[in-house]
Amino acid sequence: MTQPSLPLDHSGLGVLSARECFDRIARTPVGRIAFVSNGDPLILPVNHTLDGDAVVFRSNAGSKLLAADTGSSVAFEVDSFEPARRSGWSVVVRGVAETVEDEREIARLNDFGVEPWADGTDRAFWVRITTYGITGREIVHPS
Amino acid sequence: MTQPSLPLDHSGLGVLSARECFDRIARTPVGRIAFVSNGDPLILPVNHTLDGDAVVFRSNAGSKLLAADTGSSVAFEVDSFEPARRSGWSVVVRGVAETVEDEREIARLNDFGVEPWADGTDRAFWVRITTYGITGREIVHPS
Repeated sequence: MTQPSLPLDHSGLGVLSARECFDRIARTPVGRIAFVSNGDPLILPVNHTLDGDAVVFRSNAGSKLLAADTGSSVAFEVDSFEPARRSGWSVVVRGVAETVEDEREIARLNDFGVEPWADGTDRAFWVRITTYGITGREIVHPS
Repeated sequence: MTQPSLPLDHSGLGVLSARECFDRIARTPVGRIAFVSNGDPLILPVNHTLDGDAVVFRSNAGSKLLAADTGSSVAFEVDSFEPARRSGWSVVVRGVAETVEDEREIARLNDFGVEPWADGTDRAFWVRITTYGITGREIVHPS
């Protein structure tokens, strides 16, 4: 996964292109969403997919995310780390999350094959994160 | 990892005890911190350890986390997922993050063996998350 030709940021971390960032989101089945709940940040893992440049995932009626304001600012992150090699990467999206209300849109998303992992959970709602920024960093060790 | 005897929450997810939550934080080398930066939530991965019930990790002077208010509310998360089995777990800490200022305290933490993974990054500061709440959930499938 390490790309020796990556440009480095001020911390010496490799900078991933936006295209590479989206590719890594697409092939990483579980990410985490951070949002503000009652004034405090909260993180929850979600299994997601990409719909164009938007991150979409299922949620349920009782979720704290849906209880937050519609149109709230969120961050979404995927990563992969190998402790033995002290290597890894992380991609962070900044965006706005909204519940999908349109019935045809819901039907279209239902065909994406993103199913809840837990049994018996009714994740009837779809949340879409419209992306306003995406950044990715990879730990680069000299070979 | 699955414990069939876990109590279930309203979503059908297994509820981990606080002790089990701390154990999983201790044995998971990388977690993610969520905090509010300029009004928006942000997520960053950190390699951490436990100091009693506090999560501690190194940071650098230019980090967005340190730029946030001292004593800011944060969330910290560790997880592990197995897509092929649709299983996994997640532990979330809610707490307050502060930079460690005391020199003796810094010297003590420097002996914890938590080293930056990236080369050439000067992570001279320690951040401590004092825990005010901890919750853990595990996906439980009937055997």
